Amino acid sequence: MTFKDRIYALKGNTLCIGIDPDGGTLKALGYDTSADGVLDFSMKVLSAVDSAGVKIVKPQVAFFERFGVAGYAALEQLIAEAARLGLIVIADAKRGDIGSTMAGYAAAWLGDFAFSADAITVSPFLGFDSLTPAFSEAKVRGKGVFVLGITSNPEGFLVQGSINSEGSVAKGIITRAKALSEESGNVGLVIGANADLSRYGISASLLSGIPILAPGVGTQGGTFAGLRKIYLEDTRLLIPSISRAIGTGGVTKIYDNIATFADEWRTLG
Amino acid sequence: MTFKDRIYALKGNTLCIGIDPDGGTLKALGYDTSADGVLDFSMKVLSAVDSAGVKIVKPQVAFFERFGVAGYAALEQLIAEAARLGLIVIADAKRGDIGSTMAGYAAAWLGDFAFSADAITVSPFLGFDSLTPAFSEAKVRGKGVFVLGITSNPEGFLVQGSINSEGSVAKGIITRAKALSEESGNVGLVIGANADLSRYGISASLLSGIPILAPGVGTQGGTFAGLRKIYLEDTRLLIPSISRAIGTGGVTKIYDNIATFADEWRTLG
Repeated sequence: MTFKDRIYALKGNTLCIGIDPDGGTLKALGYDTSADGVLDFSMKVLSAVDSAGVKIVKPQVAFFERFGVAGYAALEQLIAEAARLGLIVIADAKRGDIGSTMAGYAAAWLGDFAFSADAITVSPFLGFDSLTPAFSEAKVRGKGVFVLGITSNPEGFLVQGSINSEGSVAKGIITRAKALSEESGNVGLVIGANADLSRYGISASLLSGIPILAPGVGTQGGTFAGLRKIYLEDTRLLIPSISRAIGTGGVTKIYDNIATFADEWRTLG
Repeated sequence: MTFKDRIYALKGNTLCIGIDPDGGTLKALGYDTSADGVLDFSMKVLSAVDSAGVKIVKPQVAFFERFGVAGYAALEQLIAEAARLGLIVIADAKRGDIGSTMAGYAAAWLGDFAFSADAITVSPFLGFDSLTPAFSEAKVRGKGVFVLGITSNPEGFLVQGSINSEGSVAKGIITRAKALSEESGNVGLVIGANADLSRYGISASLLSGIPILAPGVGTQGGTFAGLRKIYLEDTRLLIPSISRAIGTGGVTKIYDNIATFADEWRTLG
């Protein structure tokens, strides 16, 4: 079973809840600013995700790394609990390097030895082909690699919208990822939920048939309705991701918020 | 004292030894393929670095992450020992994200709370300005941030050599980094030792007055003599980095190899 098959098997129940225990969120929701606070928050979110029937979570690795070894121990526990609940874990790590170094990152996140997530996000600044060791590891293990294509922040355009022999940087990355996805089913893309595809010379059809992780729903201006319009043909492989908005109204609202978002996406998606 | 001042204070003794305990290196040199093996190898290299009078080390984070929590505990010990020896530690992490996530990475590597290196490498795929939280953290703490400009691998050109309103992607990044470095002294660049600057529309003068980390000396085709030719004006801020070549001839040669490289750079640089 490829990673793409695993997403298809969700039959459109593809909402992803981002777990982003940054300092501001921890404080606002009454958690300690520590690895313990990060773990407590993470477990709370996992429990709410499970209750709401959501199937995908995306821990933001920076907020665990922030607390060093203890933070990574918390992430390890998060991943183990998510696995117990049958959730798909996308480690939002945005790793990117070359050769054996890239292979090291792939082993760290997709292997059995360290964090063992189901998928990882990767950054192609060193060229799409530099990510090959991650694609190979994912293929062997039936896991996924989401390559950054168009990010949700405006500053990204200067790099992602630059012009090369493949059109724009983003277009080249997307074209290559799609070809690889058709071949192996283990490659996906990160495309910000608010992305204006036309600025990058891309049509929505280029984004069909490949898992798309779409962060930026909620606080960054993306909406479910907007996503539905872009990905009209087929939203079964579209994974909208909501992070900060799950804490709106305080910690007692996390269950309700996640349940509401999940219902909304199941209806609209 | 800014990070740039710390490099100037080395008076040209700027060789950097990369600590890259990948699986192949560990095996070839007789170390366990485990976090313990990674730690033993790291301590061996630090001791050799200290004996040779080298002042900068660059652990490659992927090879620690590869072993999860135990790997990060080894990295923590490496950094503590390097600090004890008075070495400058550049964490080669190539992190890159936006907003509070980027701030999380900056805190993880430059703060007092997690890994506490002296500098970190960062990746500008999300745009140079997305890295601002790392620049701010570095400025406050007198530490350094090395932004990927031109990497040593050929696949990088499709991204880094793409054309935008600032010339090439690499040129825009380098121009912005240099302006920031002149302002704060805490920003540097990663420019592969084998980089052909003219392909990116860059002249060597654009690279003066800013710390340059130049990986790829040795196994990736860069040479000290080649670097000297490029950075003729001033090599005091140039940090050539050697990783794999330190193990040539086996584990008993690590001391000699590092001492030889250090002497060679002091003479040529």
